[in-house]
Amino acid sequence: MSLNDETLEALKADLLEAFSDEGPNKEAFVERLSEIRSADIGEILEALIEEDDALSTTIGVLDLLSDERAANVLGYLPGDNQLDVVGKLPDGQVLTLLEEMSSDERADLFNLLGDDRREALLRRMAHREREDLKRLASYEEGTAGAIMTSDYVAIASGMTVSQALMRVRQTAPDAETVYQLYILAGDGQLIGTMSLRQLMVARPGALVDDIMIKDVISTAVDQVQEDVARIVARYDLIALPVIDSDNRMVGIVTHDDAMDVAESEATEDIHKGMSIGALESGISRVPLWSLYRKRVLWLVLLVFANLFSGAGIAYFEDTIALEVALVFFLPLLIGSGGNAGAQAATLMVRGMATGDVGVKDWGRMLGRELLVAGALGITMAVAVTPIGIMRGGEAVAMIVALSMVTIVLFGSLIGMCLPFVLERFKVDPATASAPLVTTLIDASGVVIYFSIASAILAGA
Amino acid sequence: MSLNDETLEALKADLLEAFSDEGPNKEAFVERLSEIRSADIGEILEALIEEDDALSTTIGVLDLLSDERAANVLGYLPGDNQLDVVGKLPDGQVLTLLEEMSSDERADLFNLLGDDRREALLRRMAHREREDLKRLASYEEGTAGAIMTSDYVAIASGMTVSQALMRVRQTAPDAETVYQLYILAGDGQLIGTMSLRQLMVARPGALVDDIMIKDVISTAVDQVQEDVARIVARYDLIALPVIDSDNRMVGIVTHDDAMDVAESEATEDIHKGMSIGALESGISRVPLWSLYRKRVLWLVLLVFANLFSGAGIAYFEDTIALEVALVFFLPLLIGSGGNAGAQAATLMVRGMATGDVGVKDWGRMLGRELLVAGALGITMAVAVTPIGIMRGGEAVAMIVALSMVTIVLFGSLIGMCLPFVLERFKVDPATASAPLVTTLIDASGVVIYFSIASAILAGA
Repeated sequence: MSLNDETLEALKADLLEAFSDEGPNKEAFVERLSEIRSADIGEILEALIEEDDALSTTIGVLDLLSDERAANVLGYLPGDNQLDVVGKLPDGQVLTLLEEMSSDERADLFNLLGDDRREALLRRMAHREREDLKRLASYEEGTAGAIMTSDYVAIASGMTVSQALMRVRQTAPDAETVYQLYILAGDGQLIGTMSLRQLMVARPGALVDDIMIKDVISTAVDQVQEDVARIVARYDLIALPVIDSDNRMVGIVTHDDAMDVAESEATEDIHKGMSIGALESGISRVPLWSLYRKRVLWLVLLVFANLFSGAGIAYFEDTIALEVALVFFLPLLIGSGGNAGAQAATLMVRGMATGDVGVKDWGRMLGRELLVAGALGITMAVAVTPIGIMRGGEAVAMIVALSMVTIVLFGSLIGMCLPFVLERFKVDPATASAPLVTTLIDASGVVIYFSIASAILAGA
Repeated sequence: MSLNDETLEALKADLLEAFSDEGPNKEAFVERLSEIRSADIGEILEALIEEDDALSTTIGVLDLLSDERAANVLGYLPGDNQLDVVGKLPDGQVLTLLEEMSSDERADLFNLLGDDRREALLRRMAHREREDLKRLASYEEGTAGAIMTSDYVAIASGMTVSQALMRVRQTAPDAETVYQLYILAGDGQLIGTMSLRQLMVARPGALVDDIMIKDVISTAVDQVQEDVARIVARYDLIALPVIDSDNRMVGIVTHDDAMDVAESEATEDIHKGMSIGALESGISRVPLWSLYRKRVLWLVLLVFANLFSGAGIAYFEDTIALEVALVFFLPLLIGSGGNAGAQAATLMVRGMATGDVGVKDWGRMLGRELLVAGALGITMAVAVTPIGIMRGGEAVAMIVALSMVTIVLFGSLIGMCLPFVLERFKVDPATASAPLVTTLIDASGVVIYFSIASAILAGA
């Protein structure tokens, strides 16, 4: 069973006690730690650093663990905490930890270090390790290269099944996954793949080239990470091989890393939907200054966009003076349009992000939205009509009901179309955020409402 | 490489031609199909059914494939399309397809069938298959039981490593994954697990009981599926074993199914954030009536909630009469508060969904939000002040600036706290949607703005 919150809290308390000056022997804690999973120790340490700034305790705990275990736990900490810890350790110990980390986590941590530290560490590494690390650390963040690992099982073309099985056994401790094997030609080109399952049931003397799948699903090293995650999800892969521009294999992205990418991309999309820029870490730990910067840009832009609504109201001052009861319904009408429009935009943006909706579907989506938004507008108009009659009589009720249908329909269509328009102009459709859509519809709503009012009042 | 949209389109066109009356022989298509992955054929067929209602073509394509392949492709189609296809096939063929499907997909399709069809099919199944299917089909949707498969590799306690390896080879074609093995006691209790990797490097004569990991991460059969996906992600699992209340193993949830759950849960959260209920399928294919129902509820509720804003405006009619320029700034001020508040709510709701933020973090989050929202409010007040002066003079500028800071701060705190309050009362925090938060802040904003205006204008 995985640990629940209470167990984690209890463990943290025990750990703090074990490391306090008058506490029992730290060594008594070793056995207890051995029963806890690295992911859970990571979470406890993260909470410790966050709440109590207990960096020395964290390092004490890492010292109690084997090198491999310590590297594993370190890998579960957020980047800035990894940096805090590594900053307190001598080069030799950092080197050991780096060696034990998986190659993708190693490269991530390495990229966070200062130039001096990097140079010092690189000098002490073996040539091959150094080149591998420099290569992995060089890929741009957010690409396949940055999330891949070079610890995979490569099988040379021409091997027999039993030779390949031997190779799997030899590389088992180091590879991130041994369950998918990649067959490489002499020049490193990826020419086929097979699952360990296939290998195990094959005749030992057969050549891997004869049983491998030649049509390999792979991705380019500079592919954006959300596409990488989508390919892994679509084809239910355990790992996706990454190739360079010459079709040479350079690494794999494993299913667990793809799942992490999918989660962080979903978070980014949710935040974008509210006009918040991509945060570099979770909301509980992102620096306040960064959080301010990621929220302020659109908020200020929308202040100015909202001026149009005000200008609309000012323009129709005479209409308002004719029938003051109209102002009562203003927030309700533009609010309703904004809500319906934000719904429509959100549905399209998410549909595009998951691949459910493409630009080619625009026409069909428009037709569907027309029907649904029409029905929604009529329903809401019916709901608001009695209040219109009570508050301002039949003329006002008619104005409000008619405006409701028009604004909800118009707002929904704006909200639905905006993501397509943005996509068409190569802007991220997620820019069609709820605040932006709502603000656009507010301004249009004012104009629609008072135009309808002017017409009906003039006719009356 | 995976197929891109153009290739898919071309294939679809070729397929339609091959199946048209005057087209070339269908059999010529078999070879072409053999080179395309099941997921891609599924997507082509889905598009076909969607756009052209080409059900007979779909069935024709399935007929060209081997039973195993056809079952695979069928599994990639959405439920209602599966139902369309199966509705056109005789019981015997459906039975063959069901047999070839993985046990979780088989149960899903079975659950969609009508009672008569189900009875007819069950009668023709072998006893063991029938019991397995009835059991899997009985779990409530959205739980571990409903997404698990019973095709896993169980190893009897007491087996040697070489016996276990033999068992893996035997079950390889049927099991969903052979890479994680589960060791069961005589009564079916799950007592340990080991990876195939561990098994392969172990001494052939050793007992699995001596090398297995006894502390197994597992989940209860009635656990909600989003928690299941979170456990898989947290511990980087290939599969998560599912146990019943007596600790007997009943199935596994594989990493790919967990990833699908995580994606659909993210979509649901995004929709909830805009007050849209959970849709039963993607936006491109959900029935219009259902889409209407999932959107209308909150829209109508919020129409009534918006009445408070109107009532606020009506209440302050005299203040407005004193200084008509104030109305110009109304949409801007309440819009800004709503935007900032919706941001704060969204950040918290997503933080809670990913486990980054818990109820215990409430105090710390409040402190952080106070600082950030204060800074945001001041920035926006500065932005709006020149416009205040231009439009209504210094008094109006002061009212507007002061209101901006107050409304943004107040709105952000409302938005931030609401998810915690909901969670505390066991309501889904995602109910704190952008439309709800915005509507609440609109009403409060009206009161705050005109109260400040009354006070300052009375003093002037």
